[in-house]
Amino acid sequence: MAEKFISDRNLKFLLYELNDTEALLKYPRYADHSREVFDMIMNTAMRMGKDLFWPLFEEMDRQGPEYTNGEVKVHPKVRDIMRECGAGGWIAATFPYDLGGQQLPFTVGVMVPTAIFGAANYSAAVYHGLTHGAAGLIVSYGTQEMKDTYLPKMIAGEWQGTMALTEPQAGSSLTDLTTTATPTDQGYYKIKGQKLFISAGDHDGADNIVHLALVRIKDAPPGIKGISLFIIPKKRILADGSLEFNDVNCAGIYHKLGYRGAPITQLAFGENDDCRGYLVGEANKGLGYMFQMMNGARIDVGLGAACIASAAYYASLEYARERPQGRKLTSKDPLAPQVPIIEHADIKRMLLFQRAIVEGSLALLVQCGLYEDLEGVTEGEEHENYNLLLELLTPVAKTYPAEMGILSCSTGLQILGGYGFCEEFPLEQLYRDVRIHTIHEGTTGIQGMDLLGRKMMMKKGKAAQLYLAEVRKAIKEAEEDAELKPFAEKLTAAVAQLEKVTAHQFEVAAKQGPEMFLADATLYLEFFGIIAIAWQWLRQASAAKIALQKNPGEADTNFYNGKLVTCRYFFGYELPKIEGLADRLLNGDGLTVTMKNEYFED
Amino acid sequence: MAEKFISDRNLKFLLYELNDTEALLKYPRYADHSREVFDMIMNTAMRMGKDLFWPLFEEMDRQGPEYTNGEVKVHPKVRDIMRECGAGGWIAATFPYDLGGQQLPFTVGVMVPTAIFGAANYSAAVYHGLTHGAAGLIVSYGTQEMKDTYLPKMIAGEWQGTMALTEPQAGSSLTDLTTTATPTDQGYYKIKGQKLFISAGDHDGADNIVHLALVRIKDAPPGIKGISLFIIPKKRILADGSLEFNDVNCAGIYHKLGYRGAPITQLAFGENDDCRGYLVGEANKGLGYMFQMMNGARIDVGLGAACIASAAYYASLEYARERPQGRKLTSKDPLAPQVPIIEHADIKRMLLFQRAIVEGSLALLVQCGLYEDLEGVTEGEEHENYNLLLELLTPVAKTYPAEMGILSCSTGLQILGGYGFCEEFPLEQLYRDVRIHTIHEGTTGIQGMDLLGRKMMMKKGKAAQLYLAEVRKAIKEAEEDAELKPFAEKLTAAVAQLEKVTAHQFEVAAKQGPEMFLADATLYLEFFGIIAIAWQWLRQASAAKIALQKNPGEADTNFYNGKLVTCRYFFGYELPKIEGLADRLLNGDGLTVTMKNEYFED
Repeated sequence: MAEKFISDRNLKFLLYELNDTEALLKYPRYADHSREVFDMIMNTAMRMGKDLFWPLFEEMDRQGPEYTNGEVKVHPKVRDIMRECGAGGWIAATFPYDLGGQQLPFTVGVMVPTAIFGAANYSAAVYHGLTHGAAGLIVSYGTQEMKDTYLPKMIAGEWQGTMALTEPQAGSSLTDLTTTATPTDQGYYKIKGQKLFISAGDHDGADNIVHLALVRIKDAPPGIKGISLFIIPKKRILADGSLEFNDVNCAGIYHKLGYRGAPITQLAFGENDDCRGYLVGEANKGLGYMFQMMNGARIDVGLGAACIASAAYYASLEYARERPQGRKLTSKDPLAPQVPIIEHADIKRMLLFQRAIVEGSLALLVQCGLYEDLEGVTEGEEHENYNLLLELLTPVAKTYPAEMGILSCSTGLQILGGYGFCEEFPLEQLYRDVRIHTIHEGTTGIQGMDLLGRKMMMKKGKAAQLYLAEVRKAIKEAEEDAELKPFAEKLTAAVAQLEKVTAHQFEVAAKQGPEMFLADATLYLEFFGIIAIAWQWLRQASAAKIALQKNPGEADTNFYNGKLVTCRYFFGYELPKIEGLADRLLNGDGLTVTMKNEYFED
Repeated sequence: MAEKFISDRNLKFLLYELNDTEALLKYPRYADHSREVFDMIMNTAMRMGKDLFWPLFEEMDRQGPEYTNGEVKVHPKVRDIMRECGAGGWIAATFPYDLGGQQLPFTVGVMVPTAIFGAANYSAAVYHGLTHGAAGLIVSYGTQEMKDTYLPKMIAGEWQGTMALTEPQAGSSLTDLTTTATPTDQGYYKIKGQKLFISAGDHDGADNIVHLALVRIKDAPPGIKGISLFIIPKKRILADGSLEFNDVNCAGIYHKLGYRGAPITQLAFGENDDCRGYLVGEANKGLGYMFQMMNGARIDVGLGAACIASAAYYASLEYARERPQGRKLTSKDPLAPQVPIIEHADIKRMLLFQRAIVEGSLALLVQCGLYEDLEGVTEGEEHENYNLLLELLTPVAKTYPAEMGILSCSTGLQILGGYGFCEEFPLEQLYRDVRIHTIHEGTTGIQGMDLLGRKMMMKKGKAAQLYLAEVRKAIKEAEEDAELKPFAEKLTAAVAQLEKVTAHQFEVAAKQGPEMFLADATLYLEFFGIIAIAWQWLRQASAAKIALQKNPGEADTNFYNGKLVTCRYFFGYELPKIEGLADRLLNGDGLTVTMKNEYFED
């Protein structure tokens, strides 16, 4: 198996050369830290990725969770991984000191390890990741008693946290949730209902499971205005600290295409009318709270996809360098030795595609991470602006890596030919693992409607204006460089297309209503995403040019030249895809709105 | 599980309304047949598909082949399937009467059952399919003795046929084959060497395995000019008809992403210096012979992909009609009942995508099948023209369905959301099964070079001219119809683009040599393929319009209206993709040729 799954060199480029993550150190919250601390975190994460996560990549897939007698048994190493993540401070990295955290920026404390662990073994990395997200909700909205009760065990990796939203009749449609909380006079609610597709919703690697669940309080208003956030532990905590079963039963697990190292569960709350739930924050405001975790989870999903694609890229690259096959097209001698397939233009094209997706996606994700960090330490309009940028780009940073990660892993598999299809090489597993990301935490269809129907309209389009200003800043910088100027011009043209297409969509909305407006929202998201990644590639090229002027060593020179070639690849091969998309978006005829169900007959 | 995996209504449309398959009946070879015979064949195949193949779809995947003690054990029903295919005449359907065949056209006798069985259960359909291909080589090039020895058992489905090309050091590069045949004075050769990735290369469902293998005779010229075709049975046939082990050992099988119902084997010939092979035809002409089977196999691969995508389409359609989720965007009442997801525009778009790929691909494949049938019954220039059209379109008919079949199954999986990722629904298996088709029988990269580097140049571009004439014929017909005229105009513009891009590629070839010329051959193939499918959709729309003029019943009216909408979909959503591809192909900068290996460093 390939030795490499992610490039820490590239992560450093993204943090310190493409962006100025060190600038966060000037804010009081991060004043205790330093570049050395950040580097140490990355180095430790790389070591854990290599030593703890990567060796279990294949094994956890082959020995997936088992469900017997109402219990879910996972790979025995899951317990160790959770404990090590707890002991290493990874679950609470961004939490304040007084809650047991390390008060690190999200970009460094969460994104870096999530990227590294996820590239090494995506399934193994979700256990503590979900626990971080669930604990974060308690940090933000829980009472002091809740913090005291749950956080220490969760932060230590002893208890698993989950986000429990989906129900049998309500997948994408949260408005239809029916799990019910009935008030009691004991300070808790009685919970009844079912949740489906809950990641890590039950397993023997944790001593307790703490569900952060969306539930409807009895007689609450219908729709999303009647949804509340509850803590529902699998085992409730008695006054003496001992645990008592809380009538949360696991009804089964799903057998899945990939992502097999983590159990996805069906849960039944209150089958024996003895399930207690604890209201978090105010009643009927649950969806708003949950979106803290949901937005984080969407960034995580994009990151997971980019990192699986990263592992695929390095596995294909290694194979392409080692596998001899065929000769240069200019060589006609059948007795000449075969060349490694990386010598063939078509193989290099595929590797450049993989690299363009992986590093373009990671750049956009780190950009989002920084907006989140800056949002957290600024105030007033600055704070709002970072929030708007993050909100706008979240569906893009979730979807572009997820959709293109699938194609990127598929391309990686293709490079290996028949071997790519076989279990001896990691590509087939990576291809299976990456397929979940366009589905969970909101499908691509949902993200498209979120971007076009909500985020682009938000605050009268202010988020979009802020975003375009960021893109234009990158264009302006690149224009100064003769080599990059043609790319800056292409991006300028693409931005003009984006404005034209967007204006057209709003016109459709005004004249033809929401169905016509959002019919091709998925295509709009694809179109928007390609331009956003072009922006990030232009920024990377500018950073590489600056670095090259300082005459770096050979390895760095190759790295920066690779960035420049990959930027050229993106502008040459990927950006032109917006032409066909713009054609469609500007000439929509409502085909998919008017198409009749019965025309699918035959 | 969904009840439907393919539409025989659509197959009849392709055979009798889009094309005039009955016209074959006027040729002496097919004079005994009739439309009734053709229909009966389709009906029988549909019944076998439903009763024999489909029920084993999941089971054969879950209970894949096992390799123990040098033997390959497959699902016990494989033996029954092979025998039933033999008894039903499916293996020899196209062979002449005097060799035990039914002398049917390829389109009816092979494509129809291959499509139906492949949609029902792709893995189960390859055993007899490969046997048909291997037996076909013996029919074409074998001696009478070979025909007497092998054909009856193969045609009966008692012996398995294979095509054995790939070797450890020679996947795409057949010039590097090293398996060796040493002449003896006994009329046979002694064979020594290894073959990899041989489908159905060993299993207990057949009493013998007959390998049609490419082998280099000792001291033959290097390269592809020194390759000969051999029959190498696993068990050789003694004078008394009994079987004796022929030193063909199975060294193992591959564990694969999908297509798990069929074993892919590693074979060792002559480990004990006792493997006998029998030369087919003339020495050193093996590659030319093998291309009969290879070309057929490439069409089969395209068909296999289209049919797996067909099963995915019907499974998604069924789910989309049954699954309630969300409400129309115009409905704001959270208490209104949820609607089936097929009511959402984005779901209809995805279903139209699936249908456009499946039925567009099938139309192109049937077109190729008819060219093959017409080539077989015509002479002189007409014969040559059909041959050229088939040669030109083979890489397209292999690759478009294979590449787009992957995306089509992925889209189908997406429609099911989380359930698409789970084993309870067939999508995840179809998604795994379909992934092989861009790899086996020549990867997409190889097909691209074949199309641009060989087929477009062949006979001074005569094949391309014949093809463009066919497309223009379809445009002319559609122009007569006011509703179709806009599509005819779009296709006219696309053809002009194709000519422009092609001329540019030839200019690059002349000025910059073969590496620059073929660097983006894969993109050229994609570009060419989209236009070819647009051609087939325009033809289908014309046929549907004609049929609608006859006021058909409700079901047929829906079917034809569905064809028209899917044509609109293709021209609105898929054809515009050529714009970005043309942009790239016209502005190639040699990026992938000049990109240095070390720039992938970091």
